Amino acid sequence: MLGSRKKYIVNGSSGIKAQQIQFADQKQEFNKRPTKIGRRSLSRSISQSSTDSYSSAASYTDSSDDETSPRDKQQKNSKGSSDFCVKNIKQAEFGRREIEIAEQEMPALMALRKRAQGEKPLAGAKIVGCTHITAQTAVLMETLGALGAQCRWAACNIYSTLNEVAAALAESGFPVFAWKGESEDDFWWCIDRCVNVEGWQPNMILDDGGDLTHWIYKKYPNMFKKIKGIVEESVTGVHRLYQLSKAGKLCVPAMNVNDSVTKQKFDNLYCCRESILDGLKRTTDMMFGGKQVVVCGYGEVGKGCCAALKAMGSIVYVTEIDPICALQACMDGFRLVKLNEVIRQVDIVITCTGNKNVVTREHLDRMKNSCIVCNMGHSNTEIDVASLRTPELTWERVRSQVDHVIWPDGKRIVLLAEGRLLNLSCSTVPTFVLSITATTQALALIELYNAPEGRYKQDVYLLPKKMDEYVASLHLPTFDAHLTELTDEQAKYLGLNKNGPFKPNYYRY
Amino acid sequence: MLGSRKKYIVNGSSGIKAQQIQFADQKQEFNKRPTKIGRRSLSRSISQSSTDSYSSAASYTDSSDDETSPRDKQQKNSKGSSDFCVKNIKQAEFGRREIEIAEQEMPALMALRKRAQGEKPLAGAKIVGCTHITAQTAVLMETLGALGAQCRWAACNIYSTLNEVAAALAESGFPVFAWKGESEDDFWWCIDRCVNVEGWQPNMILDDGGDLTHWIYKKYPNMFKKIKGIVEESVTGVHRLYQLSKAGKLCVPAMNVNDSVTKQKFDNLYCCRESILDGLKRTTDMMFGGKQVVVCGYGEVGKGCCAALKAMGSIVYVTEIDPICALQACMDGFRLVKLNEVIRQVDIVITCTGNKNVVTREHLDRMKNSCIVCNMGHSNTEIDVASLRTPELTWERVRSQVDHVIWPDGKRIVLLAEGRLLNLSCSTVPTFVLSITATTQALALIELYNAPEGRYKQDVYLLPKKMDEYVASLHLPTFDAHLTELTDEQAKYLGLNKNGPFKPNYYRY
Amino acid sequence: MLGSRKKYIVNGSSGIKAQQIQFADQKQEFNKRPTKIGRRSLSRSISQSSTDSYSSAASYTDSSDDETSPRDKQQKNSKGSSDFCVKNIKQAEFGRREIEIAEQEMPALMALRKRAQGEKPLAGAKIVGCTHITAQTAVLMETLGALGAQCRWAACNIYSTLNEVAAALAESGFPVFAWKGESEDDFWWCIDRCVNVEGWQPNMILDDGGDLTHWIYKKYPNMFKKIKGIVEESVTGVHRLYQLSKAGKLCVPAMNVNDSVTKQKFDNLYCCRESILDGLKRTTDMMFGGKQVVVCGYGEVGKGCCAALKAMGSIVYVTEIDPICALQACMDGFRLVKLNEVIRQVDIVITCTGNKNVVTREHLDRMKNSCIVCNMGHSNTEIDVASLRTPELTWERVRSQVDHVIWPDGKRIVLLAEGRLLNLSCSTVPTFVLSITATTQALALIELYNAPEGRYKQDVYLLPKKMDEYVASLHLPTFDAHLTELTDEQAKYLGLNKNGPFKPNYYRY
Amino acid sequence: MLGSRKKYIVNGSSGIKAQQIQFADQKQEFNKRPTKIGRRSLSRSISQSSTDSYSSAASYTDSSDDETSPRDKQQKNSKGSSDFCVKNIKQAEFGRREIEIAEQEMPALMALRKRAQGEKPLAGAKIVGCTHITAQTAVLMETLGALGAQCRWAACNIYSTLNEVAAALAESGFPVFAWKGESEDDFWWCIDRCVNVEGWQPNMILDDGGDLTHWIYKKYPNMFKKIKGIVEESVTGVHRLYQLSKAGKLCVPAMNVNDSVTKQKFDNLYCCRESILDGLKRTTDMMFGGKQVVVCGYGEVGKGCCAALKAMGSIVYVTEIDPICALQACMDGFRLVKLNEVIRQVDIVITCTGNKNVVTREHLDRMKNSCIVCNMGHSNTEIDVASLRTPELTWERVRSQVDHVIWPDGKRIVLLAEGRLLNLSCSTVPTFVLSITATTQALALIELYNAPEGRYKQDVYLLPKKMDEYVASLHLPTFDAHLTELTDEQAKYLGLNKNGPFKPNYYRY
Repeated sequence: MLGSRKKYIVNGSSGIKAQQIQFADQKQEFNKRPTKIGRRSLSRSISQSSTDSYSSAASYTDSSDDETSPRDKQQKNSKGSSDFCVKNIKQAEFGRREIEIAEQEMPALMALRKRAQGEKPLAGAKIVGCTHITAQTAVLMETLGALGAQCRWAACNIYSTLNEVAAALAESGFPVFAWKGESEDDFWWCIDRCVNVEGWQPNMILDDGGDLTHWIYKKYPNMFKKIKGIVEESVTGVHRLYQLSKAGKLCVPAMNVNDSVTKQKFDNLYCCRESILDGLKRTTDMMFGGKQVVVCGYGEVGKGCCAALKAMGSIVYVTEIDPICALQACMDGFRLVKLNEVIRQVDIVITCTGNKNVVTREHLDRMKNSCIVCNMGHSNTEIDVASLRTPELTWERVRSQVDHVIWPDGKRIVLLAEGRLLNLSCSTVPTFVLSITATTQALALIELYNAPEGRYKQDVYLLPKKMDEYVASLHLPTFDAHLTELTDEQAKYLGLNKNGPFKPNYYRY
Repeated sequence: MLGSRKKYIVNGSSGIKAQQIQFADQKQEFNKRPTKIGRRSLSRSISQSSTDSYSSAASYTDSSDDETSPRDKQQKNSKGSSDFCVKNIKQAEFGRREIEIAEQEMPALMALRKRAQGEKPLAGAKIVGCTHITAQTAVLMETLGALGAQCRWAACNIYSTLNEVAAALAESGFPVFAWKGESEDDFWWCIDRCVNVEGWQPNMILDDGGDLTHWIYKKYPNMFKKIKGIVEESVTGVHRLYQLSKAGKLCVPAMNVNDSVTKQKFDNLYCCRESILDGLKRTTDMMFGGKQVVVCGYGEVGKGCCAALKAMGSIVYVTEIDPICALQACMDGFRLVKLNEVIRQVDIVITCTGNKNVVTREHLDRMKNSCIVCNMGHSNTEIDVASLRTPELTWERVRSQVDHVIWPDGKRIVLLAEGRLLNLSCSTVPTFVLSITATTQALALIELYNAPEGRYKQDVYLLPKKMDEYVASLHLPTFDAHLTELTDEQAKYLGLNKNGPFKPNYYRY
Repeated sequence: MLGSRKKYIVNGSSGIKAQQIQFADQKQEFNKRPTKIGRRSLSRSISQSSTDSYSSAASYTDSSDDETSPRDKQQKNSKGSSDFCVKNIKQAEFGRREIEIAEQEMPALMALRKRAQGEKPLAGAKIVGCTHITAQTAVLMETLGALGAQCRWAACNIYSTLNEVAAALAESGFPVFAWKGESEDDFWWCIDRCVNVEGWQPNMILDDGGDLTHWIYKKYPNMFKKIKGIVEESVTGVHRLYQLSKAGKLCVPAMNVNDSVTKQKFDNLYCCRESILDGLKRTTDMMFGGKQVVVCGYGEVGKGCCAALKAMGSIVYVTEIDPICALQACMDGFRLVKLNEVIRQVDIVITCTGNKNVVTREHLDRMKNSCIVCNMGHSNTEIDVASLRTPELTWERVRSQVDHVIWPDGKRIVLLAEGRLLNLSCSTVPTFVLSITATTQALALIELYNAPEGRYKQDVYLLPKKMDEYVASLHLPTFDAHLTELTDEQAKYLGLNKNGPFKPNYYRY
Repeated sequence: MLGSRKKYIVNGSSGIKAQQIQFADQKQEFNKRPTKIGRRSLSRSISQSSTDSYSSAASYTDSSDDETSPRDKQQKNSKGSSDFCVKNIKQAEFGRREIEIAEQEMPALMALRKRAQGEKPLAGAKIVGCTHITAQTAVLMETLGALGAQCRWAACNIYSTLNEVAAALAESGFPVFAWKGESEDDFWWCIDRCVNVEGWQPNMILDDGGDLTHWIYKKYPNMFKKIKGIVEESVTGVHRLYQLSKAGKLCVPAMNVNDSVTKQKFDNLYCCRESILDGLKRTTDMMFGGKQVVVCGYGEVGKGCCAALKAMGSIVYVTEIDPICALQACMDGFRLVKLNEVIRQVDIVITCTGNKNVVTREHLDRMKNSCIVCNMGHSNTEIDVASLRTPELTWERVRSQVDHVIWPDGKRIVLLAEGRLLNLSCSTVPTFVLSITATTQALALIELYNAPEGRYKQDVYLLPKKMDEYVASLHLPTFDAHLTELTDEQAKYLGLNKNGPFKPNYYRY
């Protein structure tokens, strides 16, 4: 099962997805166990990217000397509680500062806290959560607490936990079970400690990747009797839920927050517009002006990449399989080509398709010297990196996340992040985007917890459009943006409620 | 009924719609009969816009002296047929040239003709049509003929017919009944002559605005027994069909081509991006650089207007009621304001909301001298123009489609097209956009005509996504755009058919 | 001499010049007399463009029946004066309205009037002027009057006079000698009537094209003894002055306002950015999105055209001879090509070089069907239009300013404005740009008139940078723009005067 | 003298200058000796930025344990030479790889090498150089060698030397005297070792900052008798040369390469367009979309910053003192404001003025919480950082180059690079830009060395425009850009030589 960890980061933390498509060969991958070596190389590449992503506090306090497993330590927070398991409770102060900084950039959650001072919409809620443990999720967790919920939490990824943040949460009384560098066994032990503790019966699940849900299904199926619903954020987790639903095995309502408008349009279009530049700069220090770039795929991610590079003075070509997206590319001013037509001339190749083997060895053989190849799309299948692991090619690691692959004639290809997601590996995800996701999760929990019986059946739901609109509205103050209100006369004329929803469900934005 | 003519142009020819919303007070409007004076002023303003819109052939051949009604003339084409009624059959040659020019810019229809040389997918089809009679619709009509159909045609608008084109169609054997400047009685007479002629039983309807459909419902309801389906293009016509369907009175399948992706995204976003600039330049010769503009509404039309004006160096503010669109405006770099906050400082006010009274007299009172006010949205309700018809204000017509409204203190507001649609009144619709619509109509006719029984019931349908994609693919050669094809392996991986459809129905593009 | 009229419009009214280069064969052209037919075709094409360019008042009042020459008419204004010669003094009211509208858009001149209420910096100035007679120059003329000057005025172009405006000026007491459609004899007669009248000795010259200056040199050389200076606006006129200076024949100081920063950067870059779109739309109604365009020349004009078309979704290629401009094109995101490399694939060819035969018959032969060809550069030499006047090609005038040139195989090229300047022929020059030029002219007159003896010798001068900055500052209020002032400490730190000039002369902006 | 080191980096390596202005208080600064602490903090901040800037090789080989001064070490390269002084000759291999990578991105210098295979334009040249020692300057140095020159080299900055590159140069036989972390005494010792060695009489100087020139003037004035010229790159160095020239003390010709078009327009406009985004992302991970930004100054640097941020969806305000630049800002679509008008609402403040105290304590007091403040302009004077060193404010270093300054009420300002140049401190300078500068330096050396006597006097010269054009042309192949050549007829028509120069000296580009 651990073989899928890598994928979970992709799905969970960045949510950069052009399409939500189930892959025929995915299951097979789930069954592969990484070898010791495979796992270590995985570890190295991922931990580098997470170190990049998070603030420097970590470096001050992480002691690489301390090899004792947290499970073997006896730790107590200042109030005497030991209901947690983190790397080092003494790092709490550093973590708290990180959380406070994050709070300043997550005004929507802070607004929810404020509104909850009177009513406690999650009073009585017992939430078990399994997500990345970062300053931003800490703000979410403490918001859920402020709304009245009790929480127990584990990490959805063995590498992504910020130990200081986990310590800060433990110090302030949250039962958190997570540290950076868990083993597979640790991973499931942590989850179990969240679920299975005396005197605790969770009634809500917040999951990212589906492992927590999977664990309860497998080990404690009876728990679902009291569970009011599942909120799931990742592509993979959502896919698992749809499969359960199809198979008639989903026994509680589930909310798919991955496909909310705000998440889809903002994560993919606007976030990639910025992170493609950031990822390329941090790895290669290249100049964009005048460079020829081919972007494979003109979905939201591709649109973001193309817009940014065009704005910086690159000449951008697009490949597409879908004629509608292709026509959009044309109207937006990009030459629509087949990859073969431009592969010899371009300086950069970027994949954003969700497809596999979009860039083949044949393409790589034909690229010109110094061509940069990277992936902004889905998982690590888009570039056929495996085809480069042949004896006649030399790999040279020139920087973190940057390999030169050298042909016998001296030609070098610059491969970024070994074909994994560039923006996840080599740039950071802005807090603003994480804020949108976290707010959506909080609202989904409130909706499911408070919904009158019968509103939701044992199925997978999208967040009601009105809530999508509410999430958006909570983020407008960040921009000092002032919404116009309909007059009564206008609302009547349009046949709309003055408070929304304002659009039909099929509206494309 | 004639009161709605003005609306039909809006819906039919441009299809520039941000939203498809039914207006509570619409029916009332339908019953209003314009007074003689009202009709004349209407006539003047509309005819000006249509003259602008169409090619110059008209000016060489139109003789304003010929006051004889076409209904009173005896005309024959060169083959001796007199089954038509147009202004002057002798103008055929001019019209033919216009049609030939249009053919060059409508490669998708020409491609359909080519593919139809073997099979005739409309063999046996008897289509009665009611649309604007322009060179572009002539290309559509002759394409339908080439695909095997017989056609009879009337105009959906009393002013929009290009007489030369009608003559050319009549000369080449199409029974066309239409001329520029029909009376209301003429209008229905023409429609009737298309429907009700001995030896002719139509089996398909192509409508734009719903008048033809309405007429058959009212006069010849039995005809529907042999009719295989209705293809309707306009917002208004589609709305009427949904109402019929809701009321259980729709007795054949109907295809809503108004809401196809290509039409919505291309007409609204890309077309308005260009026509806002064109409309403002042709009317005011203003310089865009440095001007402050407020755009009310950030739907597709608003997005197009904002992008264009920003690109030309204007400073653009946006108003919105929908928080999601509002957040998009923020991320796209526009200050989101209430109209009141900027009304004193802006140089241009543009409405794109589909709403009513978005710009009120109070706003108009507060605008600065020389402020330009115009509407790119829906019908003519967005600016409260009626409120400016008060004795203390002086109206001065300074150019065609341009009025100065002068306040007692000398302040002038520049009102364009009296608050009607700027892009329809003061700019032209590019042939490329009309080509997309016409191709969609042709495919919808083919689909309905050839659909196996049971595929479509007595309901309103959207064009299948695959056909939307086909329309797009037919327009790619215009841009010398080369689509990539999935390999078998990729198609399997993605779970897609290699020929599409490539996206789920809810995909937002 | 009349053969150069066409060029004067180009130079004078639009000032769209990428380079100020003297052409070896120019003189020859000056000596060519157009044949009767040549002149008429010239007349037709130019008058169309000027009708487009100016407001609609003309159409209400111009009576094509009145064939009497203004020189043969006896006219008096309401105050009894007959010291003028215009088409019809009765049109004064219409002209006055046009002037009033223009005043609203020329705040800089109005500000000069205001500041002049106390002091009259042109008191005693006797200005003889020769420019286009439009509403905007009327505002300039009346400003000069308000500043204390006496003026007499003729037209610098036989077609560009707005008769109503000339009438309004005459009515308010300005001795104006100009009408639309002057003969060559009329042209010189009008100039002479401005210069040579009893009791009038001009002491300042405001010229546009150099004809007035030329006339005085030839006929009344002694007049220069009392003349304090010449202000010249056009490329051609400036060139003539530099030649005079070189030859040692310039006997008064002259101010070259053509090369002021504001004129060069604003006229060329910003104005062309807008007018390329306007000109193409008005003539062809084409859609820009997805079109492939090649722009020949990447000077200011080319930069403006490229930026606009890119922003509208066109794919733009650039040709250049200068490697520095070429590198700028690269960094701005345009493929730099030779014309031959893309000539078969592009939809539009635009010349902005100032060079000759940039587009040759060979290029034209290779263009694809429907390719649009137009010129935004200098005069009419850039496209080798003459090479298209061969028997095997058919010319078809499809609209005003639009010709289809048809090859034997049916291929059509769409030639705009017969290769003359597109923006002058087919779009309008925004008042804002004219305002910058007019203000610069006014300041140049003030500077020359008031300069202490010795400041200017018998040479050609650029406007002092400080005045350039002053012109700019007078236009900032249009944009509600607020300039920052240096503190004393900062001025000292930078070694600048707090009131400017702020940049060294070689600063590139 | 050492106090100016920091400034030299600014001037020399990045060349990011909006204006070349001499500061009244500069001299005073030169005399300030940094205290031990001051120097160390300087050291820390600069070394961090250089580590960021250069490839990771450094981290593998730098041993912080080795505290021995290079001056005390005995080192030999593999050929037995010890005529160099670097940190560790054993790092040569790492440095060589860096140089090889740089070579791939500096095609212009490689082209010069190729062209020099036959002729050796620098045969006999003995060049003493003082620049940053980086992989890019190594490519320059080895190019000069390939062109026939002998070179001796020192570092112009005590922190910027890449030890591995210095080792590689020493290994391949270049007498290099430089290491990272020199003391002031080391600095002058290294320079002296380049100049004053038996059997060596330099005849060319390549300087960056003027220290080398200064040293020779002071210590070995007689050397100038054999020196053919000085090539100087930095603002400061150029300023010193102009002062020498003014004082009549310049005794050889000097070439000012700082003011070449390619350097000015490309370094400032295009480079800053990219580095503003890079610098902000690397330090703050912020999202640009929707953020309100004020950019102080609209010179080339400001233009680049504004264009980039606008393209990324920020709302940008501009402040200016110069009305012409202000009008450009307006036409480019930016609201021109005084800083006070927007200081309360903006999310980011960026200075690009070359001025001092543009952002005062008063402004800082009024900024909103989390406002980011940074400098892209000149030296470190633009933001009054000193005013923040007061007891009531708390400084918190949250990351490298990022300080939170915290007000008593909890408000935090995010100050980047302590007000020093953001792009130098927190992003990297693309090789492409360095290539333009290095090529210009090489050509300037060739020109001065080969110029016939009398072409250059004892004065400061700009590179001839033709050479500027040549530098540009050498960089076009990078973009596969194809220049058009004039025909004989066209060259004659334009009065130009077919090989350039193509523009008058005052052309603004």
